Amino acid sequence: MLELYHYEPSANSMKPMLCLKEKGLEFVSHYIDLHAFEQHSPEFVKVNPNGQVPALIHEGAIITESTVINEYIEDVFPQVPLRPGDPAARARMRIWSKFVDEYFCPALSMHGWNALIPGIVERLKMGEFDKLLDRIPLQEQREKWKTAATRAFTPEQLADSKRRIGVSIERMEKVLEKSPWLAGDMYSLADVNSYSMVAGVPRFFPEFFNDKASPRSVDWLRRMDQRPAVKAALAMGRVKWPTTATGTN
Amino acid sequence: MLELYHYEPSANSMKPMLCLKEKGLEFVSHYIDLHAFEQHSPEFVKVNPNGQVPALIHEGAIITESTVINEYIEDVFPQVPLRPGDPAARARMRIWSKFVDEYFCPALSMHGWNALIPGIVERLKMGEFDKLLDRIPLQEQREKWKTAATRAFTPEQLADSKRRIGVSIERMEKVLEKSPWLAGDMYSLADVNSYSMVAGVPRFFPEFFNDKASPRSVDWLRRMDQRPAVKAALAMGRVKWPTTATGTN
Repeated sequence: MLELYHYEPSANSMKPMLCLKEKGLEFVSHYIDLHAFEQHSPEFVKVNPNGQVPALIHEGAIITESTVINEYIEDVFPQVPLRPGDPAARARMRIWSKFVDEYFCPALSMHGWNALIPGIVERLKMGEFDKLLDRIPLQEQREKWKTAATRAFTPEQLADSKRRIGVSIERMEKVLEKSPWLAGDMYSLADVNSYSMVAGVPRFFPEFFNDKASPRSVDWLRRMDQRPAVKAALAMGRVKWPTTATGTN
Repeated sequence: MLELYHYEPSANSMKPMLCLKEKGLEFVSHYIDLHAFEQHSPEFVKVNPNGQVPALIHEGAIITESTVINEYIEDVFPQVPLRPGDPAARARMRIWSKFVDEYFCPALSMHGWNALIPGIVERLKMGEFDKLLDRIPLQEQREKWKTAATRAFTPEQLADSKRRIGVSIERMEKVLEKSPWLAGDMYSLADVNSYSMVAGVPRFFPEFFNDKASPRSVDWLRRMDQRPAVKAALAMGRVKWPTTATGTN
């Protein structure tokens, strides 16, 4: 039995949700409400001591880190392969996924936190936020919550993150000049791992993402939006998000 | 034929060097002198447009990113396996390697750059550094060079990086409480990818790395130092480094 602890089909939670849906694998869904700080609850910290979603449970093993979870799913369930057989294409898949994890996602994340966290924290009763902060396991996460809650990301930090989002889409465009999918001719985990990151860009950073600046990325997102597995994963969402230019997420 | 572009057997260059030595694979060594800025030369940027070592060439494909290179080597040359067969152990190997890449290595790197770069830059002729800066492909790398050269890492940044090095060794210690190697009972890429990072810690941060604070990590490093492949990789070094507490690197 597969069990997935996840939030919405967004950001890192979407990565294993989409992977499981592509492979047609059944899984028990444990919804963790990040807006209610459930990821830092004593119950969930028993599952992932870092207090982060997603986390996969399979045959007694707890697997964390969305990119690693997807390689694990591929290792155990190679049917409907999402990892190219050609080692060089496989390396391209991993290089792209690493770039998303280390560069693109953190840049997006700062803008997401900046936009969402103050509203979440303002709804709390006086003093409650400090108690919730105290139970965040990772010091870096604690500091990020505090910074976002007090609107303390500087204009320079936000501008630099925005620049990095532009660099990421430029790099995506260059990759897609060479092949229809991000690791080559085959749809792979490189695409799976990128969908939720790219999906919000047309709405929030349309200057980087449009038919003129990034035609191949626009086409890639359109092809992704049409995939039954993407639709099935998005259908698991609880929160009503504003629709993007491409009509999803 | 395998060709590896690398600097010393240190930091990220050591990772594929050690992997190749463990597997007994012959390779053509292309030494790139980072102190002479050869990684940003027009010739090398043709190999890796990011201007970073290591880079592996095999059957016409250029593979970059040391962690990905090692998975590639394992995919193509599974003899002398360095990736556990058990998928959960394999996930632990990847989670640990990801932690090294995203947390431990950047923390070490800031201290390394802070200690080494000013001396390298001071040896240059007036105006030469600006020209060298101009040809660095990645903006983030350019800024890191500029910051390090002008000794502009703040005491707060250096202290926080030091704290992270302590957190990394603590985490290593916890992992090694459960098993002799970093991904379990089997020596794996998790160990290969960590050696060059851990090897300098006893000398530069002995408060974190000693028989009392981190006995299991000390023992792990001692076992690593004794491996013939580690010795063979270290023997490829050109620069005479100060010896560590354990007598190597």
